Formats: sequence, structure tokens, C-alpha cells
Amino acid sequence: MESLKQKLREFATARDWEQFHSPKNLVMALSVEVAELMEHFQWISQDQSRNLDAKTREKVRQEIGDVMVYLVRLADQLGIDPVAAAQEKVSVNEARYPAEKVRGSAKKYNEYE
Amino acid sequence: MESLKQKLREFATARDWEQFHSPKNLVMALSVEVAELMEHFQWISQDQSRNLDAKTREKVRQEIGDVMVYLVRLADQLGIDPVAAAQEKVSVNEARYPAEKVRGSAKKYNEYE
Amino acid sequence: MESLKQKLREFATARDWEQFHSPKNLVMALSVEVAELMEHFQWISQDQSRNLDAKTREKVRQEIGDVMVYLVRLADQLGIDPVAAAQEKVSVNEARYPAEKVRGSAKKYNEYE
Amino acid sequence: MESLKQKLREFATARDWEQFHSPKNLVMALSVEVAELMEHFQWISQDQSRNLDAKTREKVRQEIGDVMVYLVRLADQLGIDPVAAAQEKVSVNEARYPAEKVRGSAKKYNEYE
Repeated sequence: MESLKQKLREFATARDWEQFHSPKNLVMALSVEVAELMEHFQWISQDQSRNLDAKTREKVRQEIGDVMVYLVRLADQLGIDPVAAAQEKVSVNEARYPAEKVRGSAKKYNEYE
Repeated sequence: MESLKQKLREFATARDWEQFHSPKNLVMALSVEVAELMEHFQWISQDQSRNLDAKTREKVRQEIGDVMVYLVRLADQLGIDPVAAAQEKVSVNEARYPAEKVRGSAKKYNEYE
Repeated sequence: MESLKQKLREFATARDWEQFHSPKNLVMALSVEVAELMEHFQWISQDQSRNLDAKTREKVRQEIGDVMVYLVRLADQLGIDPVAAAQEKVSVNEARYPAEKVRGSAKKYNEYE
Repeated sequence: MESLKQKLREFATARDWEQFHSPKNLVMALSVEVAELMEHFQWISQDQSRNLDAKTREKVRQEIGDVMVYLVRLADQLGIDPVAAAQEKVSVNEARYPAEKVRGSAKKYNEYE
């Protein structure tokens, strides 16, 4: 993650693209990449999405790479550590959704999450 | 990242929520979280987005955590390493957008990216 | 549609909110509203999405209203007639996907669309 | 709007694509189209977004058409009138954000909306 962050900084600086990388713009780019990822899943069933063919899976892998690129770049511009932020969120969720109370319940899942 | 992935697996298993975590559903959840992040940026200027007040920045940090949670969870369900995928994408982009050719150009940036 | 467009203009002018309604901002707001709509569908099956309970359906109706509000507002700021644009798109698609060639094929559907 | 809705029904039926048009899938398609629209705005300023060149504006018009297509299609599958839903939402917002209280305030705008 650290080396990825550094590479992305150097990539933007070498091209003088820092000027386009405001958090406002980067969150738009992040959203666009998520949609490119979503496009592969829009017409297939949930079961099919658990069993992608090799060609689709490779495209999906590249789109996941793009999403991660913009997420890391956005977090860096804001001085935020995205993995630490995620770790904290997991701890919050563990307290908020006690396993014994919400287990297996779609209804509870919808209400809580 | 590895410990985050493990924690998210245990979180879902303990609650029997694996059944809801098809890649199709997870990409929808990822998209929803990105929108919750975007909401903080929709009415402000690019300059303002570079200088968030402390309260907004904290909310943004939590939303970035949520986005990372679903990105890691989705990638795990597909057996994809998201950081490796991002690293590869950076290498591809370095070759595709040579610094000397695209430096500082918004137009080039739009065409290429 | 015409009266909706007019009402939205008056709404923004009366509040001096035109200044926030740049197309860039409005497309972000549109995206956020679509995600609020999507949230109701993220953990349910396709079958369930065809049979929403009354309470969810009412929330979905309101979110569809929000999406339409921002779509009409964005189109108006750009001087675009969204219904005419959609009509044209249908004509293009009718030529592009001849019924006899693509009928019932998920594969074709994915490739073409 | 009525004729657009009818055309979209016939388009789907003639191709036996009703089977793919669950509300869950359609909201994903709607989200993907909004992102294709957003892509044209991600690296430009708010001022630039108010003054698109002719070529970009034409592309934007087509994307707005696509967004409208899926919004009308989704609403139809759910038996919802999207324009009526939007009209109602405007009435709700007029009561919720009294002009004299929120005029010109970005802060109020953010808090309220």
C-alpha cells in the first residue's frame, strides 16, 4: 500500500496532473471506476457472479485495480490512511451488529447495515 | 490488508452473512458507499475539497473506511489481490501516458484517461 | 415534464441556489440519489426486487422522484430535452440490436449493450 | 413520456429481454449510465461544466438519453410514475426548505439537502 501510494504520487507529479487531482474530482473518478466494475455484473445472476469465466474475471481484476488506484490517491490527498479507517470501521460494526443478534437474518441485515 | 481481509471474513461468517455477499451484491454495496463519500463533496468547490474542516474530514475518513471494507470484501470473494491489481494498473498507465507527452495537459488527460 | 422543469427553476431561484447548480455538481447529486435508490436493492434477490413490499416500494418511489428531479435539473442547465434524447436513443438501439438477431440471448445482450 | 415508456416495453418484449430487466438489474444499469455521464465532468471545473464545447455537449446529451431510458424502464417495472413522484418531491422540498430561511446559504444547503 505504501509503495502504491508513492508510485501514484510520482505518476501525478511527473505529468503535472496534481492540478486535476482535487478530492472533488478524484471522488468522481472513483465513482466512474466503480461503475466500470459494476458493468460486468449488471445483467448476470448472483450465482453467475460467484462463478465468473476467466475472461470476465481478468477484466474485473483490472477494474478492481482502477478502483483501488483512485481510492488510495483520494485518501492520500486528504492525508487519510484508508486501511486504518477500514480497520476502525470493522471494530465499530462488530459492536453494532452482535453476531448472536443478527445471525443469518436478511431482515436484520437490511435494517442494521 | 491481510488482517483486514481475515477480519472481514470472520465478521461475515460469524453472522452467516456470506449468503448475501455475492460479488453482484457487494459491487452494489461498494457503489452505495462511494456515493455516501461523494455526498460530502457535491456542493463544494474543488478548492474547498482540498481544505475540509475537521468535522467533515472525520466523516469522510469513515466513509473511505467503508469503501475500503467493501472493496477488500469483493476482491476476496473473487480471489483477487486488489493491491497487486492496482500496482499492475500503474505500470500499464506509465507506459500508456508517457510523462513527456502528456505533461500538464487537461485535453490530453481527458483523451487518454 | 415542462411544469416540473419550471418548478425546479423557480425553486432554485427563490433560494439563490443556482450558484450551486453547475452541471458538475448536479451530476454528482444525481449519482448520489441513484445510490440512495440502489440501497434498497443491494441485498435482495432479483425475484424479491420484482415484488417489493408496500413500505419499501413507497421509499423507492420517493427516491425515483429525487433521481428525476436532478436529471431534469441537470438537463435544463445544459439546455437539453431529456425525453427527446431518450427517444433518439431508443431509435438508435432499435437499429443496433435487431430483434431477430439478439432475441433472448444473455450473451448477445452483454456483448451488444 | 408515455410513448417512451411504451416503446421501451416493446423494445424489451421483441427481444425477450424482459427476463434481464428485474428492478435490481435495472438500477445497476441506471447507475452505470449515470457514471458514463459523469465521466465527461470529472476533470473539468464547474465553470467549464457550464460551458461545454459542442462535441462534448452532444455526447452528454446522448448519455442523458441513456439515463432517462433506464429510469423510465425501472419505474415502469415497478408501476411507478416518475414524473408524479418528482412533482411530489418538489412539494415536500418547498415545505422543508422555506426560501426565506435558506436563501443563498451553502451551509444551510448542505445541512438541509
